[in-house]
Amino acid sequence: MPLSAAEAARSPGAAPVDQVAVRRANLVRVLREVRTAGPLSRATVARHTGLTRATVSSLVTELIERRLLRETDYQQDGTVGRPGRRLEIDGSAVAALGLEVNSRYLAAWSMDLAGRRLQERRLVHDATHQDAEHTIRTLAGLAAELIDDARLAGAHTAGVGVAVPGPVDIATGFVRSAPNLHWRDVPAAALLRELLALPDEVSVVVDNEANLAALAEHGHGRPGTADLVYVTGEAGIGAGIVAGGRLLRGSGGFSGELGHIQVDPAGERCACGRIGCLETKVGLPAAMRVAAPDLEGADEGAATGAVSHDPQEQAGELLRRATAGDPRVLTGLDEIGRWLGIGLSIPVNLLNPEVIVLGGYFAAVAPYLLPAAMRELRERAVAGDAAVCRVTGSALGFTAAVRGAADIIVEEIFADPGRVAVHV
Amino acid sequence: MPLSAAEAARSPGAAPVDQVAVRRANLVRVLREVRTAGPLSRATVARHTGLTRATVSSLVTELIERRLLRETDYQQDGTVGRPGRRLEIDGSAVAALGLEVNSRYLAAWSMDLAGRRLQERRLVHDATHQDAEHTIRTLAGLAAELIDDARLAGAHTAGVGVAVPGPVDIATGFVRSAPNLHWRDVPAAALLRELLALPDEVSVVVDNEANLAALAEHGHGRPGTADLVYVTGEAGIGAGIVAGGRLLRGSGGFSGELGHIQVDPAGERCACGRIGCLETKVGLPAAMRVAAPDLEGADEGAATGAVSHDPQEQAGELLRRATAGDPRVLTGLDEIGRWLGIGLSIPVNLLNPEVIVLGGYFAAVAPYLLPAAMRELRERAVAGDAAVCRVTGSALGFTAAVRGAADIIVEEIFADPGRVAVHV
Repeated sequence: MPLSAAEAARSPGAAPVDQVAVRRANLVRVLREVRTAGPLSRATVARHTGLTRATVSSLVTELIERRLLRETDYQQDGTVGRPGRRLEIDGSAVAALGLEVNSRYLAAWSMDLAGRRLQERRLVHDATHQDAEHTIRTLAGLAAELIDDARLAGAHTAGVGVAVPGPVDIATGFVRSAPNLHWRDVPAAALLRELLALPDEVSVVVDNEANLAALAEHGHGRPGTADLVYVTGEAGIGAGIVAGGRLLRGSGGFSGELGHIQVDPAGERCACGRIGCLETKVGLPAAMRVAAPDLEGADEGAATGAVSHDPQEQAGELLRRATAGDPRVLTGLDEIGRWLGIGLSIPVNLLNPEVIVLGGYFAAVAPYLLPAAMRELRERAVAGDAAVCRVTGSALGFTAAVRGAADIIVEEIFADPGRVAVHV
Repeated sequence: MPLSAAEAARSPGAAPVDQVAVRRANLVRVLREVRTAGPLSRATVARHTGLTRATVSSLVTELIERRLLRETDYQQDGTVGRPGRRLEIDGSAVAALGLEVNSRYLAAWSMDLAGRRLQERRLVHDATHQDAEHTIRTLAGLAAELIDDARLAGAHTAGVGVAVPGPVDIATGFVRSAPNLHWRDVPAAALLRELLALPDEVSVVVDNEANLAALAEHGHGRPGTADLVYVTGEAGIGAGIVAGGRLLRGSGGFSGELGHIQVDPAGERCACGRIGCLETKVGLPAAMRVAAPDLEGADEGAATGAVSHDPQEQAGELLRRATAGDPRVLTGLDEIGRWLGIGLSIPVNLLNPEVIVLGGYFAAVAPYLLPAAMRELRERAVAGDAAVCRVTGSALGFTAAVRGAADIIVEEIFADPGRVAVHV
């Protein structure tokens, strides 16, 4: 990455490159210290980081210029005289934008670097019956609105994260395949950058929805959990894996394809062309077919009219019927739960997570899935009860992926604060 | 962890604890810098780490006292006058001991902190027909010999790593279950510590053999590979997972149970009691049954006498027959390869590794397994060819686990150099 003008000014010709790298690393250390333990005085930051006070002062000056830190007066309890000054995260001038492409809706979520939500939007959009470019064009329109809103609120959008339901080549932002969108090799990042006319310093990160939802659950839902698996529960079934506190993307960004692991060699053909994938057993269409076959094939405006194809509405209808004691739904969800337990035993045995978070419709009807799922899981966990993890519904509901898409941008900025524009 | 005497001396009463933590972190930084980029002058270390020269000198003095670093003269090319001095890793006074319990043998491997091998031993031992305590007593005898040998060579053994074929509770060193050893809840670390009368500062780390083999492959075999899965191929089938450059142990240390994931719901009962586990399809006993049924049940001294139960000898016999064109072996290995591909598709889809390393008998007969395995893998990799990883035989052969057991001790010491005794 080329040096920014500010960095170049600080490291004239003769300075070795590793001094620039050291300064960059120290900016991150100071920022991280204030973020996790702040508000803090400059002296405390120096003590905690092991840097000299002079170095800390120089770094703090830069971080204040970039509006990542601010310094406020405070009066210690029971003292008089000149107040002390403490550093805290500012971040109000910098926004991160999260976007999500679902087969049934588009969503957007913007927040500033201090984690304050700026805007939230959800748009009904049937991506399965539109071509990829049209969908991305609609998404860009939504993004442009939120970028404008952020600008009016005084925040420059420093990056855009995009959640998609399929494996992504992270480095290029190519969506390899998203079967439920009928996408194949879509250059999503490049298209979005072009449509929004984003300059190079604004990053566009496209990632799998399950990865981003896992990040969001890890950050907001359960910050203390180092080993977490998030399982989506919509038309598609995917997993986002946090291991040792970090997102596990795999070497090409293709991790988490839990939905297409075979669980029944004698089973049905999946939309992906394979036989007996977990998705054919526990995907939302399978659940509707097993638990509420009268609604199968229901569409917006169709004759039955009882429920739309919106996954959130379908999940609500399943829950309503289960709560009312509908025996077919109860039996159906028990059967789905059994297959879910079989599916979850795969990450449990391979990864030994501390917690599995169920997203989508799984979260809505969890009480009706979990008894059978946990029974199956207990039988299949090789290391016995000690390895059987907690399985729980998502705390973030249907916003997990889009919030994770914004989070990933926030983390990217905190990992390289030098890229944020200087305000003087 | 309590402070060592040396640390306490450096941080008298009034010093805040975080200064101790900072010093400890800086010791690690200096050591890591020399380890990865050395030999280096003190000035270069200061520049690379961003620490002051005075701080570096104080840290270097401590690391030299602990015999982790040494300083040597060097004459820059084409210069005269006083030679410069450079720091490099010493480590000759500190040894790490790796041990392995296999169902058919015990192994030991000792090395110093600079990575030089001191001793290597392998002992035929049928752990399946002995109780756990007897096996650990035999292992302790082997360990005592290597600790003595290291002492004679001037190296103090700072830690003992133990590889076992089953899930381990890392924190306590309890082996939860090792079906192929008939072990259940064996306090391996405590027993070994007691038998060897090890003082508290000598650590005993018990871990799954696949985890340790994966570490060894990552460190020695393929240091550039961030995402690697190692699959054992003996009586038991397990996986060791390195993701993002780090071993993935899971929340309780129970990761990698690939062998007991169900691949055939209509299959046979496994030794673990479950149905259709991958191990029933590709474990070494299954391979012998399918590819060389005339040798099935062969034992040392049995009537057939052709081959023992030693996994290395069995693998050799399979390879000999396959090379000779024995049609039953070729057909059998092709069938095993097909199931292996089905099994490998699970970590490929869930973890997207860059490379899968096959250990045990898989490595020996890889050319006869891989065509069918790769065919199956290509069909099952959801993200297509981009996600199909390289699959290759282990470069370390049957020593991978025991070398990994020594490696883990070496890494532990480099991560906390303050625990190494001071030599003055």
